[in-house]
Amino acid sequence: MRCSATLLQRLSAGMARPGLPGPPACAGFPVAATDTPALLLDLTALERNCARIKAALEPFPHVALRPHAKAHKSSAVAAMTLELTGARGVCCQKLCEAEAMVDGGINDILLSNEIVSQSKIERLCQLTARPGVKLAVLVDDAGNVSDLAREAARANIQLEVLVEVDVGQNRCGVAPGPATAALASAIVSHSPALRFGGLQCYHGLTQHIRSVAERRAAILGPVLAATKASIAACEAAGVWSPDLRVTGGGTGTFIFEAETGVFNEVQAGSFVLMDTDYTDNDAEDQVKFEPVLHCLATVMSRPLPERAVLDAGTKALDLGCGPPRVVGTKPGTATYRSGGDEHGIIDLSGAAVESDMFKVGSVVWVQPSHCDPTVNLHDWFVLHRDGIVQDCVPIEARGPGR
Amino acid sequence: MRCSATLLQRLSAGMARPGLPGPPACAGFPVAATDTPALLLDLTALERNCARIKAALEPFPHVALRPHAKAHKSSAVAAMTLELTGARGVCCQKLCEAEAMVDGGINDILLSNEIVSQSKIERLCQLTARPGVKLAVLVDDAGNVSDLAREAARANIQLEVLVEVDVGQNRCGVAPGPATAALASAIVSHSPALRFGGLQCYHGLTQHIRSVAERRAAILGPVLAATKASIAACEAAGVWSPDLRVTGGGTGTFIFEAETGVFNEVQAGSFVLMDTDYTDNDAEDQVKFEPVLHCLATVMSRPLPERAVLDAGTKALDLGCGPPRVVGTKPGTATYRSGGDEHGIIDLSGAAVESDMFKVGSVVWVQPSHCDPTVNLHDWFVLHRDGIVQDCVPIEARGPGR
Repeated sequence: MRCSATLLQRLSAGMARPGLPGPPACAGFPVAATDTPALLLDLTALERNCARIKAALEPFPHVALRPHAKAHKSSAVAAMTLELTGARGVCCQKLCEAEAMVDGGINDILLSNEIVSQSKIERLCQLTARPGVKLAVLVDDAGNVSDLAREAARANIQLEVLVEVDVGQNRCGVAPGPATAALASAIVSHSPALRFGGLQCYHGLTQHIRSVAERRAAILGPVLAATKASIAACEAAGVWSPDLRVTGGGTGTFIFEAETGVFNEVQAGSFVLMDTDYTDNDAEDQVKFEPVLHCLATVMSRPLPERAVLDAGTKALDLGCGPPRVVGTKPGTATYRSGGDEHGIIDLSGAAVESDMFKVGSVVWVQPSHCDPTVNLHDWFVLHRDGIVQDCVPIEARGPGR
Repeated sequence: MRCSATLLQRLSAGMARPGLPGPPACAGFPVAATDTPALLLDLTALERNCARIKAALEPFPHVALRPHAKAHKSSAVAAMTLELTGARGVCCQKLCEAEAMVDGGINDILLSNEIVSQSKIERLCQLTARPGVKLAVLVDDAGNVSDLAREAARANIQLEVLVEVDVGQNRCGVAPGPATAALASAIVSHSPALRFGGLQCYHGLTQHIRSVAERRAAILGPVLAATKASIAACEAAGVWSPDLRVTGGGTGTFIFEAETGVFNEVQAGSFVLMDTDYTDNDAEDQVKFEPVLHCLATVMSRPLPERAVLDAGTKALDLGCGPPRVVGTKPGTATYRSGGDEHGIIDLSGAAVESDMFKVGSVVWVQPSHCDPTVNLHDWFVLHRDGIVQDCVPIEARGPGR
């Protein structure tokens, strides 16, 4: 049996773009009155984290901060971060994120990823052509360089293009050294449609090495060696100049990239929100950040003294980096485990005092284990200060990432 | 440093509800022209799965199918499923899903979850009061029963309320037997604001037991025993009648609940979409379903012959039940592993022929491992038939689930 034509016609009416669901909170109300599950963003903590990173980078005036917006996907949060840190622009990981940032007034963007399909390259050129937009993109493939050049020429614009170097992550990127120089030369050969902008030498897997010494060694050892070899190869090929960008680093390592004297841009972004995976890193005092992001959940069931069930499951909290941490409880007394897509189970068997926090209807704060994919599940940040909701701002670039 | 008042004022403008991003495909175009990452829904396969479940339930005329909408969160897909199976209504897991279904014209809903906070109970009553809406909700707490009764009386409506029995999942629900009867009696005592509707006896953890014999034994053994004990206790308490609902079962077990002669409603929903976790269940022929849901991704990087990188990471595919499966490849020749939030890495080291499928710019179909949380990451289904896009329909109830 096939779906009826009448039904399919009716469904076509659904092509009209529905709006986002409304915000979960109202300015002026207590945070605890927020509809759950909802993402809370502590403005005071965010401001302190921004002040911390600014101070940490002050000894390195040659290093620009370009906070990564993939963590929060919100032009409002990007605007706050730029104002508070003095950074001039952001990184984005997806074209749709870059479009949302430009729509939200953020015009200086490094799209730290490859853009390969015809329709996306056309959108990239359209975005770059918008007034005031300063956009750069990565490549790791010669065919892609030609495609970008052709479309940039057709759109009568110049695209700034950086080579992504695989400095150890084994994901995208060309090999350090001669392969990098060859691709840089290919970009240069397509001048003026393309302009060679430098190198991205980012190693995501180093960000969560727990020990400071090992994390530092990973950057100052193999990552720096690969970066230097790539610059040297570009110099030998005659395509390097000192004003080109060398960009990389995340919240876990940016201070080490800054120390190298070779990197002149760092991409840390998660410091704005933080999560348990970053909180669990050992860190030197000047780059210790505090939790800004929480998920507010409601106890929807308390079938047993030792078990409370929250209304926040894997559709509200990403568990890929482990369970979230329940705020206001001692370690081991109230642990979250998955209750499926719509439920989170709090095991209270180790708790005594805390179990009063978990009456049916009570709200509970949890710190997500991984900010990026958790934020991606939500449509709004609830901004709060001193226990009061200040505003709600949309996470307008959330989604699968087109 | 605090965010400036000017900036916060500007952000407040963001309170206006932005629309969803536009659909990723156009009707009439080939599926391969879809912007990626995108969720594809094979209409022909969906129709066959609906025909299969209808046929499988034909020997059980006393058992109504009430397909669970938490899997697809789309009123359009719900409408198709109801038309094709003849089912009268759906299940929802969250109040916002129920609201979206009613907005989309689906009026007969079992909200198979507890609704506990004041604002949500008010919304529940408002929804129930809408013309033509037939809605029931679960409880597992006496205080919640009183709250529902108070608000239903205030709204001048009658709420149908079922008791959730914990038949082994150890999540929400009251213990089988006397505790169930006590809560049922509490509901009855609040007549006419509340009407006792029956029992939900769902055991989610049994759905993915791989062996047919063990899955059947889990339902016909402990689940059925707990269900019968609860009905007997309700009979003894004088609150049972044969027209009350006994509801449960999912795509993995519904046929066994149907066989019991005790259940009169089954909630299978994933059969509409399917995923590798359900595909990997052993199943008798009459309840074998085929893949309907895929994620279309683009190869955005091919740094090495043995490594391709897709543009679909954990922001497009939930990996909680393992990696997605690459369509059109032999097992072990092209395996997906996480490349982080925005990338999926295809290991081609075991492949020879297939590696041509993975040129930069090629599109690749993958079958998600778990449909519910993967769908929740996306805003649109791309409906296709014979390789051509038929329509795009919004996943309007996606989100953290309020």
